[in-house]
Order: sequence, then C-alpha cells, then structure tokens
Amino acid sequence: MNVAIVGATGYGGLQLVSLLRRSKKHKITFLGGERSAGLKWNNLYPFLTIDNNPLIESLSIDAISQSSNVAILSLPNGISSTITPSLIKKGLKVIDLSADYRYKSLELWKEVYSQEASIYERNDHELCQEAVYGLTEIYKKEISKARLIASPGCYPTSSLLPLIPFLSQGIIENDGIIIDSKSGTSGGGRNPKENLLFAESGEGISAYSILNHRHVSEIEQILSQVSDNKITLQFTPHLVPMVRGMFSTIYGRLKDPGLTSEDCKILLENYYRNFSNVVVLPIGTYPSTKWVRNSNNIYLSLKVDSRNGRIIILSVIDNLLKGQAGQAYQSLNLISGLPINNELDLKNFYP
Amino acid sequence: MNVAIVGATGYGGLQLVSLLRRSKKHKITFLGGERSAGLKWNNLYPFLTIDNNPLIESLSIDAISQSSNVAILSLPNGISSTITPSLIKKGLKVIDLSADYRYKSLELWKEVYSQEASIYERNDHELCQEAVYGLTEIYKKEISKARLIASPGCYPTSSLLPLIPFLSQGIIENDGIIIDSKSGTSGGGRNPKENLLFAESGEGISAYSILNHRHVSEIEQILSQVSDNKITLQFTPHLVPMVRGMFSTIYGRLKDPGLTSEDCKILLENYYRNFSNVVVLPIGTYPSTKWVRNSNNIYLSLKVDSRNGRIIILSVIDNLLKGQAGQAYQSLNLISGLPINNELDLKNFYP
Amino acid sequence: MNVAIVGATGYGGLQLVSLLRRSKKHKITFLGGERSAGLKWNNLYPFLTIDNNPLIESLSIDAISQSSNVAILSLPNGISSTITPSLIKKGLKVIDLSADYRYKSLELWKEVYSQEASIYERNDHELCQEAVYGLTEIYKKEISKARLIASPGCYPTSSLLPLIPFLSQGIIENDGIIIDSKSGTSGGGRNPKENLLFAESGEGISAYSILNHRHVSEIEQILSQVSDNKITLQFTPHLVPMVRGMFSTIYGRLKDPGLTSEDCKILLENYYRNFSNVVVLPIGTYPSTKWVRNSNNIYLSLKVDSRNGRIIILSVIDNLLKGQAGQAYQSLNLISGLPINNELDLKNFYP
Amino acid sequence: MNVAIVGATGYGGLQLVSLLRRSKKHKITFLGGERSAGLKWNNLYPFLTIDNNPLIESLSIDAISQSSNVAILSLPNGISSTITPSLIKKGLKVIDLSADYRYKSLELWKEVYSQEASIYERNDHELCQEAVYGLTEIYKKEISKARLIASPGCYPTSSLLPLIPFLSQGIIENDGIIIDSKSGTSGGGRNPKENLLFAESGEGISAYSILNHRHVSEIEQILSQVSDNKITLQFTPHLVPMVRGMFSTIYGRLKDPGLTSEDCKILLENYYRNFSNVVVLPIGTYPSTKWVRNSNNIYLSLKVDSRNGRIIILSVIDNLLKGQAGQAYQSLNLISGLPINNELDLKNFYP
Repeated sequence: MNVAIVGATGYGGLQLVSLLRRSKKHKITFLGGERSAGLKWNNLYPFLTIDNNPLIESLSIDAISQSSNVAILSLPNGISSTITPSLIKKGLKVIDLSADYRYKSLELWKEVYSQEASIYERNDHELCQEAVYGLTEIYKKEISKARLIASPGCYPTSSLLPLIPFLSQGIIENDGIIIDSKSGTSGGGRNPKENLLFAESGEGISAYSILNHRHVSEIEQILSQVSDNKITLQFTPHLVPMVRGMFSTIYGRLKDPGLTSEDCKILLENYYRNFSNVVVLPIGTYPSTKWVRNSNNIYLSLKVDSRNGRIIILSVIDNLLKGQAGQAYQSLNLISGLPINNELDLKNFYP
Repeated sequence: MNVAIVGATGYGGLQLVSLLRRSKKHKITFLGGERSAGLKWNNLYPFLTIDNNPLIESLSIDAISQSSNVAILSLPNGISSTITPSLIKKGLKVIDLSADYRYKSLELWKEVYSQEASIYERNDHELCQEAVYGLTEIYKKEISKARLIASPGCYPTSSLLPLIPFLSQGIIENDGIIIDSKSGTSGGGRNPKENLLFAESGEGISAYSILNHRHVSEIEQILSQVSDNKITLQFTPHLVPMVRGMFSTIYGRLKDPGLTSEDCKILLENYYRNFSNVVVLPIGTYPSTKWVRNSNNIYLSLKVDSRNGRIIILSVIDNLLKGQAGQAYQSLNLISGLPINNELDLKNFYP
Repeated sequence: MNVAIVGATGYGGLQLVSLLRRSKKHKITFLGGERSAGLKWNNLYPFLTIDNNPLIESLSIDAISQSSNVAILSLPNGISSTITPSLIKKGLKVIDLSADYRYKSLELWKEVYSQEASIYERNDHELCQEAVYGLTEIYKKEISKARLIASPGCYPTSSLLPLIPFLSQGIIENDGIIIDSKSGTSGGGRNPKENLLFAESGEGISAYSILNHRHVSEIEQILSQVSDNKITLQFTPHLVPMVRGMFSTIYGRLKDPGLTSEDCKILLENYYRNFSNVVVLPIGTYPSTKWVRNSNNIYLSLKVDSRNGRIIILSVIDNLLKGQAGQAYQSLNLISGLPINNELDLKNFYP
Repeated sequence: MNVAIVGATGYGGLQLVSLLRRSKKHKITFLGGERSAGLKWNNLYPFLTIDNNPLIESLSIDAISQSSNVAILSLPNGISSTITPSLIKKGLKVIDLSADYRYKSLELWKEVYSQEASIYERNDHELCQEAVYGLTEIYKKEISKARLIASPGCYPTSSLLPLIPFLSQGIIENDGIIIDSKSGTSGGGRNPKENLLFAESGEGISAYSILNHRHVSEIEQILSQVSDNKITLQFTPHLVPMVRGMFSTIYGRLKDPGLTSEDCKILLENYYRNFSNVVVLPIGTYPSTKWVRNSNNIYLSLKVDSRNGRIIILSVIDNLLKGQAGQAYQSLNLISGLPINNELDLKNFYP
C-alpha cells in the first residue's frame, strides 16, 4: 500500500513512521504536518530517518490522493471530518485516529465533542453510519472490507478488549462495571500543555475528568452493542508519571457466582485464540505496562473474588501502539489483505 | 518527650528524625538501627544531621527505657512484639508502626501474618486488646490516654479517612465498596528488592496482591467496627513510578441516590471540621499526590454519579508522613498533651 | 517587610509564596500574575493557601508601590527592566530574578540577550552599574545596603560558589576550567514547551546550548572580577529527567600540584565558615541533588587528582531554592537587617 | 550459531534473549542462570517468551559445550575466568561480557579487580594475551578470527568510540582529556542494591567513584594503545534517574587550534563511514539518550571552541545494547561470518 501519514509529527504520526519506514508491504508516500511543512523529515528526526528523506507537506487532498491509496489521519478531533469525505470520494481508504467517526450517531458526536462541533460544521451522517470501529480483534471482518475505519484510542481499547468477551456472552452483570484506568503522559499528545510538563506530572499521580471523560460514551456505545443492553458504567482516568503505557483495572459482578478464575480465564483464551497479540496470563500472574512497551500486545489477567461474586480484570497495552498506531497498522494490514499482525512482531523494550 | 526511634535508618525512621530533630517539644534520646549500629548518625546522613551527632545503637530494652519515655518502633512485622511488652512494663509509651498490634484479635494477626507468626511466638493477647488503633483523627481521645498505639500505614489511612464518615453514618451501602490504590515505591521500604529497583519499577505501573493484600483485613476490621456491620470489600494496590505519594480512588453505592455531590462534601467537611490537616476540596477540583509531598495533609475530593447512584471519593497523602511517620508524630503530640498537629505545619514540596 | 511578588504563578513565584506565606518577619502584600489576574489565589493553589486568600493582580506600579516596600520580580528577561526604574524611583527595594541587571555593562546585556533587547528598549545604564549581584554568601555586605539586587539563577550559583574561593585566592589556573552542569526540568520554567514535556524529557538526558549558553558570560564576568583576570571557560548544561535539583561537576588545574584534597577542603571550609547553608563534605563523600531538595543548602565535595595536578569539585543545590527563590529570600533577609538564613531552616525532602 | 547464554536473567542476559530468540541466523541452545535454575523460561518471562520454553539450567561446562558452539557469558567479574578456559578447550568460542579478559595484563586485572582476585585464583595469562577487545567497529578484523572476545561495557564504549579517531590520528592532545559520563540505573545491574532503588535514585543525580572508577584503566589502556602514548585522563561517572541510556560529554584540547567543527566532523564521518550504526550528527544538533533506546546505534556530535582551541564531543548509546548485549551480538555476527549489523536494525523506542 502507498500510505499517507497525515499529522506525522505528533506521537501517533511518529509511531506510524517508525512502523512503516522499513515495511516490505507498505510504503510512506506522503507526510503531512502543518507546523513542520516545508522541512525535510530527516533533519527534524535524525533518529528516525526515512530513506529518501521526504519533505513534510501541508495538508492537501490532491497531494494525498495523487500519491497514496490509504490515508492514516492522526489529527486533532474535528479536523479529520473536514478532509475525510473528499479523500473517500477520491477513492482512498481512510484510517482515522481521531474520534470523528467513532459514533454511529453524528448527533452524539456533536454532543460529546461540542467544542469541536462549534468550530467544524458537519453533516456527514452517512459516513458516520458507514465507518467501521477499528477495534481490530473484534471487527476484523468488517475492517477488511471498509473504506473508512475509526480507529479507537488507548482507553477504549484497554477497556473493551477485556470486557467484550464477558459482556457479549452474558457472564457479568450489565450494571456496576467500574473501569479504573492509568495512563502514561504521552497519551496527552505532543502539544505542550502545562499539566504534561515533566515538572508537573513527574512524581505525582492524579485523576481527571471524573465521570465525564469523553471516552465513556464511546465505551458504552460498543458495550451496549455487544451486550444488546444499555450499559452505563464508571470510568476514572488517571495520569501516571511514565511516558508510555496504559493499565486498566476493571471491576464487575459475575452473574453466576460459582464461576472460578480458571473458568473465566479459559473463556477469555477461547475468545482470542486466533490473536497472538492478545495474551491471557496464568491466574496469579499480574502484568506491568513495562511488559508491552514497544509491542502491539495486550496482556490480560483476571481473578474471581469468591467472597462476593466479583471479578477483577487487568489489562496492559502500549498506549501509542495497540492503543493508537499499532492498532491502525493492524487495520492497514487487514484492508491490504495481509495477516492482521503482519510485521508487528516487535521487540518489546525491557527494562 | 524523650523519644527513642527504633529502626531509625529505614524510611519511617528517617522521616521521624527529620520531624523530631529540631522539635521544641520532643527530643531524640535513642536511635536504634541494627545494620548501622556503632556508627555516628551524621556520618551516615550528612544531609539530615542531628546536633549532638548521636551514635546509632543496637536494640536494647535497657538503653531505650533509661533514655526515653516514648518509643516509636519502625521495625519489620513481628519484631515489635518481641520488645513492646517489656517496654510497656518499664513504663514507656509505645507507638508501633508495624502491624503487630493493629488487630484486636491476636489469632487474626497469626492468620494474616502467618509467616511472621511462624518465627515469633506470641501470646500477648491482652496488649492486642489494649492497643489503640492510631488513626489520629478518628481515635484522638483514645490515643491521648493510650500506653500502646498501633499506628496504621498508608493504605489503611488513605482508605479509612474517606470512608469512615460515610459508613459510620450509613450513607453508603456496606457491600460493593471498591478501593483502587496507587502507591509510590518508597512504600515498599528501603530494604533492596528487585521489584523496587529503578530499572524495574521505573516507566511501568503494575498491580499486586490482588484480593489478598494483608491490609484488606485491617481496613475491613475498622470499617466493620464503625459501621456495626461486617464489611467485605475489594482492595487493589498498584505500584506507581514515583518515590512518594499515595492515591486512592474509592467507589461506593449511595443508600439515598438523591444525595448530591455538595451534600456529601458538606458531610465530609463537618466530620473533619476540627482537623486542619484534612482538606475537603471543592466539587470538580481533583488532587494530585504532588500536592501533599512533605506535608501531613490528606486531601479529599468526591463526586456523585447521579446516573446510577454511586459515589467516587479520591484521597491523596504523602505515604511516609500522614501514611507513616507524620501520623505517628500526631500520636506523639496527643500522648504529650499537645495539639494534634503541633509542629506539623510543614512546607509542602511543589513542584 | 511588605513584599510584592511579581510573577507569582511561575515556579519562582510559587517558591516565594511557599517561603513567605507563613513568615513571621515578612508579609505578602501584592501578588502579580498576568495570566491569572483577577482570580483568587487559593482557588488556583488549594495546596498552597494564603490566609487572606488574596486576589492575583495584573502588574501595576502604583498597586505595588502602595502596598509594598520590597518587590521581588520573577518575570521573563526584559520585562523587569520596564518596571524596575519606576519602582526604585518610588522608593521600593527591588530583588530581580531575571538577567536584566546581572551585567555591569548594559551593552553586554544587549549583546547576550539580543532577542529581548530588540523588544525592550533600555538605557538604564546607571541602574546596571548600581545593581548588586545577589550571590548572597559573596556579596552579603553590598546586598545589605542595595536598592536593586540582581539575584543569580541556578547555573551561576552552582558554579560560582565552588569556584570563587579557589580563583579569588589563585589556587587554580585561570584557564582550562570546565563546568559540566546537570539540571532538573523545572529550571526551564512553567511555561509549556515541547522539550520540557514529561514524554520528551522523561527517560533521556541531553545537552544543549553547547558553548553558547547565556550564563557563560555571567559566570565569566564574576570570575574575572574575583580573580582580577579575564576568565574564559567551558560550560555545558544538560537536562536531566528529574523535577528539581542541579549538579555541577567542575574541573580545574591546580597551580600547586602538591596540594592535597584535604588542603583544598580546609580552604573551602574556611571560606564559608560563617554560612551554615554551605556544607563542605568529607573527602570521599559525594552528594546527590536529592540531599538538598526543599532546602537552601549547597553541598560541596572535592577531590584532587594527584596523577595530573587537577581538581574536581562537585556542587548540588535545589535549583528553585538556593538556585532561585531561596537565594532571593536570603537577600530579602539581608536588606531587612535579619540574619541571612533567617526562617530558611527548611526540612529537606528525602527520599 | 548455537548460542549458550550464561547469566540469562540479568539485564545483559535478557537483552541477549530478546535479540536472539527470533534470529534467523543464531539459535539459543542453552540458558544458564543460578538463581532460577530448574524453572521454565516462559513462566518467569511471560513477556519475552521463547518458542520451545526452555529450562533454565545451572552452569555446567558439559551442558554448554554439548549444546552450543558459542557461549556468551554475562556473569559477575571473576566467575567468567573459572569457566572460560575449559570452554575454549572444548572448542567453543567465548564472548565474555565481564572484565575478566579486557586487560592484556592479568597483573593489572588483579590490581584493579583486587576484590575478585582475592576470591578467584587466576593464572590464565595466555588467554588474557589472546583475548580480543570486543569494541566491534575498531577491532572488527581481529574479532572475526578470535576464540575469546572481551566485550566492553557501556562506559568504555561511549568514551572510546568518540575519542579513538582523534587520538589515533594525533588531532587532540594526549593529556587533559576529561570524560564526564551519565548513566541510567540499569547499568548497575539487576541485583538489588540500596542505591539503585527507585526511592533512592529517583529524582536525584549523583557522581560516584570519583577518580577511581575501574573503567578508567580500561579506557586508558586502549587509548594508550591507539595513540602510542601513555594516556592518563579524568573520568567521572554519574547516576541519572532513568532506566536506560548513557551520555558522555568529552572535553579535549586540539593540537591545531585552527581546526573547525566541520573539519572534525568530517574526520569522524570518514573514520566510521563503513558502520551504519555510528551516526555523526550535523554541527549544532545534539543528541538525547532517548534517541538510541532499543537501538544499537551510537550518535556523535561535536563542537570546537574557537575561543580556546578545545573540542567537546558528545556520545549517546543504549547502555544495554551498544553498551552491552548489542555489541556482543555484533561480535557474534562477526565470528559467524555475517555482516556486523545483521539483524540489528532495531526499531528505536521514542518517546
């Protein structure tokens, strides 16, 4: 595939370049970046060089569509919707890393992303309907045939993959689910903000967006779909003093309190048996986010609390890979007719 | 007070020295440390000097009782029980930072601390019964008159202070409580262990002791007491890449779903109105552990989830101060007839 | 003293508030901050409250001069020079934390700070001449009587205090001095910049401004003065993944290669014998920046290399205290007729 | 090659497993580890699995020699010398990561490693003479034919590669060289030590082994050799709060003060033109250790100080790869007749 990376100098873009620059199957044919437009890539990133040292270009639908047949958009929310319709019309496939096409309902998007909605006027209802949610292990088949993929971010990915097997099969109760998530600071992006400074986020942990984080509605939409029930849950994001990684601690109530940890583990293993990047750990083995750095894997571990019929599920991912660029790369593989994890057998980075 | 610090070179001991060395009310009269016995304090800690440069001594009941009228024990679990009875008999007051006297029932201690119980033979049932749980804001009156104070550690302190007002007044349901706690690595002590190495705990977050952490039974004991009900809850400790600080995210169900965040905030404020070190934040203000470094404060924040009648409470403390040495210092003040927060108006350390 | 803190919400300002808010000798009478003007202090900084919860005001010479008799300016370079002359005229004493009055020669300032000079037109030559360089242990007497104090920052402080005793007494050669400095990221200030993000500066060390850092000329000016010789040296600043602290490793050549480490240590001790905050460590004891966090101390250690007649001197400071606000506080004490280290006996923060 | 990794569970071993487990050219045929002997690899390292889940074995010359034709020894100093002679006799090639064979003179080793020498009696003079110093870009030819390779560690590698081109060609003076090095904490190994705890090394930088670090003599031996002169220099190691990475700031005096930065850069580029993993940066571009994480590259940058005829050279490496396991892997490639950087085109890990 000839791939345009639009928004190449943020963290999503950098990871995509890192994944794609030596690919034998895909080729970077366009690098878009507003702030750095006009500069040569290798001068900016001497540690992440691309063989032909391409120019970083400003966003142009013509330039993208003439050079590429897939565009991966790593842009702020709202902006993607200003170019995606045109790119699709030109015949490109689009993998969008923003939230613009993650909701079936454009109205819901306008409600949740009201600030962006006030800037970008949208009426691309059909594209919202058509877009496939790019959670690759769950929607593999749909992604393979999609024109537009709304690739989910780190919080939904680390929450949904552990919960979907249990909710879709009616193993845990629909209400009372709690997701307590902990994110490294790179999840906040590369745009300088005070709270993401080393001096501010170093040596401290904090919670934010209590009860009103934008990803709640996204997670609830997917879980409601797979469970055929309206799911409302509690999701608490925390900012942790580390660069990369996401850890989610998920609490639920078992419908059948007789289920053991081993039962639930087998269920999870079966659900993901075709996906080598989803690893279910032995009972009693608990993962660290450190295990998945520079990898596209998700590690899952669980334990049943027999005292009160509850279950705790832990998940860890690299927020910039399985939580962002790596997942997009899986979609790229799928729309290219390649195995989902092709060229994703990365060397994890430990310690 | 003439104060013996026994176990002076661990983190608890170092904080106690830092708090006591320039006190106008208390005086360090004995410094005990096995590994460093025979060395001069200031040679080991040139950045935390004591005026008369005392010798670090090995543990001796005679030396302690001749020099001091209070002993603060910062020793590994089990060891405290080998000297506390003798110290009490000699007329000293004892503030114990270990778990040895935190349970009313010695049998429960032997069960939870079975490993220590297999080493140290104990039958000091009466002392267990007599000991006062040193959660200072809750048991202030009892502590003032106590001979033996079992000072709680960081996890119970950061969990109990937010929960007691709600459980003791029947505001939240007794079951379904979840405590998701995040601790800095200094909570694991100064004894070198592989998992506490910078190279291991840096740049990663992990959970441990899922469902079977020793502090669960301690937290449940106190909550059962204050609520007059048997409480069983879920407690998940996490290790966070920072030196100091503890963050607890606590989830509960309101009995009366009509209660608002503001109602619950007022209740909390009233409960702690006499304690300047307990700060209840405005609704929508969420604390960072960074706010309490080098302070003995606990910051509390809460929010009611009106969608499903749940409440989220956040608490932050400095794990080595309010979670350890600072709390012991409050007890020291109380048994000395001083105001609870005397000389504890520390300069917090930000950023 | 009634003290105006101008630029109160940057790191310099926050430290000043922390030092001053409970002082028995000084009182905060004005808080200036452009971005936060109009807001109440305690709402912004619930963890650093001031008793009367003052308003943050925008910069006004009248408001400052009516409320205060000393102004401490923690402003970006260049801005100080736009208000200092007026404040001095109104009879206030000014302690300036910027570089505006650190050079005797305004021309040199215009050369080194050419960017600022192109924005702010200056011709306050006399004030430049009059201003006293606020390196408190060296210019104590002059500071006591000054109207305008140019308080030095972290790099010069951590470099000059170790070097001045040796250069002023002709112990080390004038040429060939190398200063290799390592700074925590808070030295870069609180204004968000990409390179200071946790995700960028975490888990990496880098050097910057090789051979052309602005502080070189400042350090050389003072060293040339004290040695009565033109000193040119090499200074290499590095950015280290920690919030606070500065470490300088200084290399020089001894004029008399027969001098021992012990000789040089005694010389240093004698030089600073009246300053309890300057601590010379025993030979073979090497400090960590961790020793001085939340303290106004500087620790010095040295070793003579008898193989080749060279000396290595190490210095550590808290970059925001002795390297910034704490040093200004020393000047405030001096101009108030108080002991230099009055109310500066802070509890250091370890670990 | 069939490769035995002896000392597989330290950081050197883990990196070797990570590099070798999916190699198409080399195969892991023995995993030695004392503490973990008898356990299955994948149970200990679920995040770094090996396909056949091998047993970790205790050290046995027979087992190693029957399974493997190369042994990579990642063992504490001294122990290697107890098995290397036997392994060589059995016909294996040995790549030793310890210091045991880095000196031509066994007497010098006994002097520098006196503690180890007092435990392990050695008289393998011939092997010391025969061993090739495994600095791969410099001794490529010799390594290709060697039976025993003494692979250097991070400090010498990051110091020697920048200095050798200048000293071997007489560009910089032999005396007055200063190496100021900064290391991440993983350089201290995985064995728990107090100073390497997160709580101790986090948020602080310190220097150690001033003037008497063991690597000084090793660096001086090689530099004396390449310059045909006795070199004595100053080397100051620092411990930086990061997991991985090493930064060396090197100061020297140019013989010809007319040389420009550009001249020196060209010289360096020419010297390493055949080694794609040695990257010389444009003048004015300064590297971060972050650029080389998970890579086997070394980045070099330099600047000439025309004011006083000095040069500053910066080098960054991943201390566990080019500074340890990656360099050993290069040697493995060379003795296997493969290109030096075969299978070492790793994805660097940024941010």
